[in-house]
Parts: sequence; C-alpha cells; structure tokens
Amino acid sequence: MFENRLSRIRSKFELLGIDTVWITQPQNRRYISGFKAADGQLDESSGSLFINKEKALLLTDSRYTIQAQREVKNFEVITHKEGLINALPDVFNQLNTRRLGFEGGYLIWDLYQKAKNQASLQSPAVELVAISGLVEDLRKIKSQEEIDLLSSSAQLMGNILAQVIQELKIGQTERDIAWKIESLIHERNGDGVSFPPIVASGENAALPHATPTNKQIMEHEPIILDVGSIVDGYCSDMTRTVFLGGPSSYFKEIYHIVREAQVTAIRSIKIGMDTVEADSIARDVIKKAGFGEFFGHSLGHGIGLITHEMPYVGPRNPVVLQEGMVFTVEPGIYMPGKGGIRLEEMVILEKDGARVLTTNNNFL
Amino acid sequence: MFENRLSRIRSKFELLGIDTVWITQPQNRRYISGFKAADGQLDESSGSLFINKEKALLLTDSRYTIQAQREVKNFEVITHKEGLINALPDVFNQLNTRRLGFEGGYLIWDLYQKAKNQASLQSPAVELVAISGLVEDLRKIKSQEEIDLLSSSAQLMGNILAQVIQELKIGQTERDIAWKIESLIHERNGDGVSFPPIVASGENAALPHATPTNKQIMEHEPIILDVGSIVDGYCSDMTRTVFLGGPSSYFKEIYHIVREAQVTAIRSIKIGMDTVEADSIARDVIKKAGFGEFFGHSLGHGIGLITHEMPYVGPRNPVVLQEGMVFTVEPGIYMPGKGGIRLEEMVILEKDGARVLTTNNNFL
Repeated sequence: MFENRLSRIRSKFELLGIDTVWITQPQNRRYISGFKAADGQLDESSGSLFINKEKALLLTDSRYTIQAQREVKNFEVITHKEGLINALPDVFNQLNTRRLGFEGGYLIWDLYQKAKNQASLQSPAVELVAISGLVEDLRKIKSQEEIDLLSSSAQLMGNILAQVIQELKIGQTERDIAWKIESLIHERNGDGVSFPPIVASGENAALPHATPTNKQIMEHEPIILDVGSIVDGYCSDMTRTVFLGGPSSYFKEIYHIVREAQVTAIRSIKIGMDTVEADSIARDVIKKAGFGEFFGHSLGHGIGLITHEMPYVGPRNPVVLQEGMVFTVEPGIYMPGKGGIRLEEMVILEKDGARVLTTNNNFL
Repeated sequence: MFENRLSRIRSKFELLGIDTVWITQPQNRRYISGFKAADGQLDESSGSLFINKEKALLLTDSRYTIQAQREVKNFEVITHKEGLINALPDVFNQLNTRRLGFEGGYLIWDLYQKAKNQASLQSPAVELVAISGLVEDLRKIKSQEEIDLLSSSAQLMGNILAQVIQELKIGQTERDIAWKIESLIHERNGDGVSFPPIVASGENAALPHATPTNKQIMEHEPIILDVGSIVDGYCSDMTRTVFLGGPSSYFKEIYHIVREAQVTAIRSIKIGMDTVEADSIARDVIKKAGFGEFFGHSLGHGIGLITHEMPYVGPRNPVVLQEGMVFTVEPGIYMPGKGGIRLEEMVILEKDGARVLTTNNNFL
C-alpha cells in the first residue's frame, strides 16, 4: 500500500519539475510512510520524508527513532543529532537533489528561509519548488481500506451519540454531555476525539462553533451535538439536533427545512457534479424557505486523516466530485438570540450516488 | 493589561522598521487581545490582529464574531465575508499601512505568498517584514497574574498526580492511568490537558516520548508519569518516576543521579546565568556518574500559554535567564531495553533563585 503511494508521488515529479520531495505535514507523512507520530507542537516536527525516484528517507530525532523503525518499512530511517536543517546537505548529497519540492501549504516561513539558505550553499545550488496539494490530491480519493476505517469511525461515533441522546436529561450541562462523549470514545477504544465535541443548547445553538458551557439543557430548546472520533487515524464527524419533550412549532418548521435541504442534497449528489452545485442544491431549499441569510457556512468538507480536508463543498472554488470521495453534508439554520438547527452526515460517493456512513438506518 | 501589552508591541515598531503588525498565532493573539478562540486546524484561523500606532483591529469570520465581541475590549472587531486575503486592502487603507510586520515563525508559506501578492497591488505597494519572536519575547517574562495562573495550573496537576500515584495498582494499564489523569483534570474544572499524558512503564520508560499502551504496570519497574493541565489558558508540565514495591538497586542508583542533577540545577540557577550553563550543571552531574550518553534531551523549556516556549534550556543557543521566567527542570536517564528515569518540576526565577511551582512540599 505504501509502495503504491510512493509510486504515485514519484510519477508526478516530472510534471512538477522536481527530482526530490520533502514531506513534513503529519498526515501526509503518515499517508505515504505509515509513520504515525504526531507533532508535539507546530514548531516541533517528529520527522520529515525525503523521496527521490530511487530512495526514500525518513529523518527524525532520537525521541522517535524506535517508533519510526517499528512503523515504517519502505524508508531508510535516519536519526539527525543537530536538527533537520543541519542534516539537509547530507540528504541533498545522498539523493543528488537539484530541485526540491516542499509543502507550500504547510511549511512555516522561517523554516522555508532556513532550508532555502542551506539549499543555496550546495554546489550546484538546490532550488526549492512549492508543491502545495501534491499528497492532499491523492488523499481526497479514499481506498477501500480507508473507507473501511472511516466507516468504523463513523459507526463508533454513531452508536455513542445514539446512546448519549437516549440518556439526555433536563439539567445536564453542555460540558458534562461533551465529557460523556469523550469518555465513551475512550472506553470503546477509539484513538480519541477528532475535534472538541460541540454541545450547544438554546441560544448557544445559534453559534456554529459554540464551546460547551455550564448551561443546563432544558425542554423544547434545540440541542446541537456535533461530534467526531478517530479510529486508527481516521476521523468521523456528525451532527444531530434534538429536543427534550419535542420542538416548539418555530423550530419544528426550521428542522424540517434543514432536513429537506440535507436529504435533497444527499439524494442528488453524484459523480461528476461539482462541489458548488452540490452546495447550491441544499442552499436553494433553505433560500426558498426564506432562511438563506441564516445558513452562513459551507455545506460540507472532505474528511479522512484530518477532519476538514479536500474536497471543500461550498459556494466557491468548484471541484468535480469523484468516486471514492468522503465528505460531510451539513446544512444549518442559525437564528441569533434564539438557537439553531444543524444536521450532518458523512457520505461516501459511489457509482450510484452518495451513501451515508454515519447511520445504520436506511437514511432516506 | 492588554493596553499595556499593545503599547509594548507598538514601542518596537521603529526598531523593526514597520508601521503595522499582523498577529495570527493563537497564543500571541490571545496574549495581546484577550481573544481566547483556538484555531480549528492549522489552515483554519479564527482571527487576525492588525495593529498600527493608533488603531487595533481584530478580523474574524461570522463563526467567531460574537465570541470576539465578548472577549476583546481594545480592538475593533471586523467580520470579513470573503476570507482574510480579500479583506487586506481595506485593512491596509484603514491603517495607512506601508510596511507590515508578519510572524515569520508562524505564517505558512502559501498564505505569505497570497498576502504578499495582495500587498503588492496596493498603491503604493505594502512591504512585508518578518518579525519572528516579537510577541514571544514579551511572553517569556511572566507578569504576576500569569505567575498566579501558572501556579494554579501546577498545583492542580500536582494534587491530581499525587492522588493518581497514591492509587496506582499492579495490573493497571498505562492507557487507563493516562485516562484517569485526564478525567480528574476535567472533574476539577481544568480547561484540559496541556499535552497527551505520558505514562510509560518498564522498557517503555526508555522512550522519552512514549505513548501510553495497554501494558500493565508491574512491581519494581520504573513508571514515568509526565503530565500537564491547562487552567485559564496556562499550561503545567511535571514528571514523576515511581516504583511499586520500590526500585531495583539498578534503578535506585539511576534515580539518585537524576535527582541529584535536578536538585543541583534548581539550587544553582539564578538571574543572569545563561541557559547553556543551567543545562550543563545538571548534565555534568549525569556525565560524572557515567550516564552522559543516556541523557539525550535538553534540561527544560519555558512554559506559559504553550507547553514548550521560550526560553529553551539546553546545550545550545544560550539565552540569559531573567526574573519572571518560568521553565521546567527535567533531567532524565534512559537505558534502551531496560527503562528510564525522568524528574521534572516547573520553576519561576525570582530574585533569590528558582522557586518550584509544582509541589507544595519544601522541594530541596
């Protein structure tokens, strides 16, 4: 699997005008090499891949050497002692590097400058070439193995969320509900949450990015639960909006509009459609109902090793939807001072349309 | 407080040759403005500060407008609708920007290019100037309010860790112990962990960056617990190494060497000493005992709104230690295949030396 991904990366070298590529973004690194280490902080990398047509090196420091040797098969693991920048000349010499592709969408400006400076000291000088999106482009089409993991992650999250909703009680705080979700993911051996759970009730449900508070949940108010887990590196993301004792007639109407927008989109999305059209299918339902200005965000986003990744499904930057893409469909209506409704499923795009991963029920 | 920090930033403009500064790193942003939002992902900013000598703007999108208005007093909150890059011309015009300082240590290469391109279209063109470390330099000296929060975070963590160690039992897994630590931080109203807890027993204790496994803890083996909490944004970080039923004579000796290295360093560190000398005090103790090659990492690191921040206390890049710096002192000895010992305290540097924040006991 990793050998296949390496080949696909190498097959792009000529088009990009590079002979070596430098991969340091943690999920790209994992995708290509199998090295699972996270980065401690943005400025603390646990490793870099350097790949030319013949060789593949993983540079790391002594904290991660053993883990790299265990997890990575197709790369030579090299432990640098004086930092990555000082190790670059040896890498360039070993790989005969003349034109080095780097991740423009990830590399920090300072680190770029240092690498460029080191590259300019080589003889002949090494040129740096931005290759933003090279690995991300591969990652946006999921393999069967990835689909299975995304499905496991979605099922785990779906089961937990169903239980949490079943056990909701008046007086529980948003914060305690969020913690219960985290705890259940731990108990059932998930890797963890894919993002901090959103539990937003009443007026708080009008904020798409609400942080759980000590507010207690009450009858008849909207309670948005937007949650995700990680299973073997793969993320899930789903949202339910529920009401204890049923919704007010005001929110009952809004709920039905959001639901219709979601169902219409999921039924209509197909291979070859672009993301802007997909977004507009749901948006048009909400606009026609008179709530267009209260649906401020995009319809959805790709999901895989990262919660938000390509393809982004929104009103700008059209991307053609392809078989094997996995993304969310999550329309919402947010009424300031009153509350809001959001409904979100993860779907996989297959030959005959979008299939929902986040529920066992027949969705439509 | 925030007004004071703004003034100190502005006082550096002339030296840096800028008239406006752009701050987007989340902890720098919080430090200057009080805006507490995290960034969802590296490529999903929740806001940017733009500051000239007279004005201070916070640019965000509709997801964060309400939070920004609640939390931020000294900035005008502006909601952009078409993304930050498209909002830049208005910002430049409003602030009369000619030379814009940006965070070279944080800005991603792609975003830098887009900003630079947008800046070049202004008339006259706006120049971009890297100002790496501007806010970090302020952050490395803690105010009394920050010291109080760091102390609260250290005390919370110290109390929890003492309880967890008290309740350790043969057969518990590393993973369950790590989860218990996370749960107690939640129960006692911490914001969360400052990094995923390290619980490493037996051979795993030889890995400085071990991930908790399903291995059960046993008698007489070293159990390293390296843990941290966040309280009101401020991080703690501490490490204990313990033995159920007491250590073997092999690890008893190593423990005493590490402890001596730590105590000697904490007793000796004082204002005006540089970080390389501080590191060498502990390192020399370990070297003299014959274990120098098994202490592979630095002695410590600054800590504040981020777990690892300036000043870094290691064998390279000397920085003069100043009153009000808060950092860790954490020597360790790691014997491959056998296990390891690490001991870590957080200290605040005061007029008469380093004071330990992570324990109530008289440390020395």
